[in-house]
Amino acid sequence: MTSRYKITIAYDGTRFAGFQSQPKQRTVQSVLEQALNKMSKFDEYITIFGSGRTDSGVHALGQVAHFDFPHDMPADAMLRGLNSMLPLDIEIVDCQIVPQTFHARYEAHAKRYMYRVSRSWFIDPFKRFYTGHYKYPLDIERIKQAMGDVVGTHDFSSFVASGSQTKSHVRTIYEATVREDQANNEVIFEFCGNGFLYNQVRIMVATLLEIGNKRRPVHDFLRLYGVKDRNQARETAPASGLYLKEVYYGQQAQQLEKKGHLQN
Amino acid sequence: MTSRYKITIAYDGTRFAGFQSQPKQRTVQSVLEQALNKMSKFDEYITIFGSGRTDSGVHALGQVAHFDFPHDMPADAMLRGLNSMLPLDIEIVDCQIVPQTFHARYEAHAKRYMYRVSRSWFIDPFKRFYTGHYKYPLDIERIKQAMGDVVGTHDFSSFVASGSQTKSHVRTIYEATVREDQANNEVIFEFCGNGFLYNQVRIMVATLLEIGNKRRPVHDFLRLYGVKDRNQARETAPASGLYLKEVYYGQQAQQLEKKGHLQN
Repeated sequence: MTSRYKITIAYDGTRFAGFQSQPKQRTVQSVLEQALNKMSKFDEYITIFGSGRTDSGVHALGQVAHFDFPHDMPADAMLRGLNSMLPLDIEIVDCQIVPQTFHARYEAHAKRYMYRVSRSWFIDPFKRFYTGHYKYPLDIERIKQAMGDVVGTHDFSSFVASGSQTKSHVRTIYEATVREDQANNEVIFEFCGNGFLYNQVRIMVATLLEIGNKRRPVHDFLRLYGVKDRNQARETAPASGLYLKEVYYGQQAQQLEKKGHLQN
Repeated sequence: MTSRYKITIAYDGTRFAGFQSQPKQRTVQSVLEQALNKMSKFDEYITIFGSGRTDSGVHALGQVAHFDFPHDMPADAMLRGLNSMLPLDIEIVDCQIVPQTFHARYEAHAKRYMYRVSRSWFIDPFKRFYTGHYKYPLDIERIKQAMGDVVGTHDFSSFVASGSQTKSHVRTIYEATVREDQANNEVIFEFCGNGFLYNQVRIMVATLLEIGNKRRPVHDFLRLYGVKDRNQARETAPASGLYLKEVYYGQQAQQLEKKGHLQN
């Protein structure tokens, strides 16, 4: 009896060379597959399908993946079994048995990313792997205004890293928020959209920080959508501040889409 | 012109084999001395004197040390110079030129430690190096009652690790508090006292958690002071949750002592 499992995964990306398997690298996928194949004791190799890649150093609070397991095992036994075999920088936080039609990548209709920026004058030893860092003055009201230009359907060609092989750079962002976390001296961005290009969030955050520091006009995003030129956006915020927070499927995703269409 | 500098240091203890220099180990002291001696370009080796040791994996938000530097250099230039040469898991957060009579260890009359305990049902990948972990039920009111027994002058022989070579185990604790950090799902202990024995805070925290979980009577500390037997306190909470938060000198320390005497 083969069943399909959907797992939600949190990981500290610091010591992983990203999500996707690569020869001789420690990746999230390879560590998960190693644990899973040890559990299955089966000839057939079990492959894990993630909702998408995350880069080296990028974290996840709610990455989603699926796999087929060739033995009967209740979802909570799978969760406990996997966690007992996984290293401490990766944790399965939810596990469900799903229909064979579920696919973690093809059915991922929306994603939410968070980006944490530390505001201290020095690089805090406790945050160096867990935040980006910006020590210059920031006018949060300017950033909030600019975030209004981020929401909606746009051509994000100016915000895609050169390595991208995607044909269309048009994506829809349903929600874009920024808030100050005074207690931790951080600025926290969140973006929820139907898909994100390679490095898109990190390039957008770097541009938003420049707007907050008055190095760019408030509505520079509108100009950048038009020019479709990666060199105009310049900087990329470091991987350490980026968290894949949630992946949306089915009804949840549809509600976001509906909301997005209403806003456009 | 030799001047004496007092520095306040924050460090992430994860990748250090403790504070004190040891052959072939990466320690806070050796990393600091390396940077400092590179800066001085002088034949005479500059030694750093810390307020006391911290163990491998223990963190600091406000460790204090002093050293003598054989060149004229303003305090803020020293701070910036050192930070530019130090790795990212250590940071000088304050630097002052002090009288030659100042000594970071001999004049440290009180210290404050914090201990963070994560309460999640799994070991959070983002906290494994930065908190202890307790997944069983806790009655915080019981812990608060027990903390009342911690304050004051006691013989802490039941709470000292076997490696200790100190003669007297009598110490005074001026303040002992516990609070719940709901947002982060943590319980946070703080202890301020005139000195702490080897592993004392970590053994006390482990005992307090057992009281909170009703595995020990609320006032078990009173019994433990009497028996003076390390085996009765058993567990030691992990180094990862412990932070040296502040070291008190001069007037500040005197005020704490006064307060302590009033409470006894």
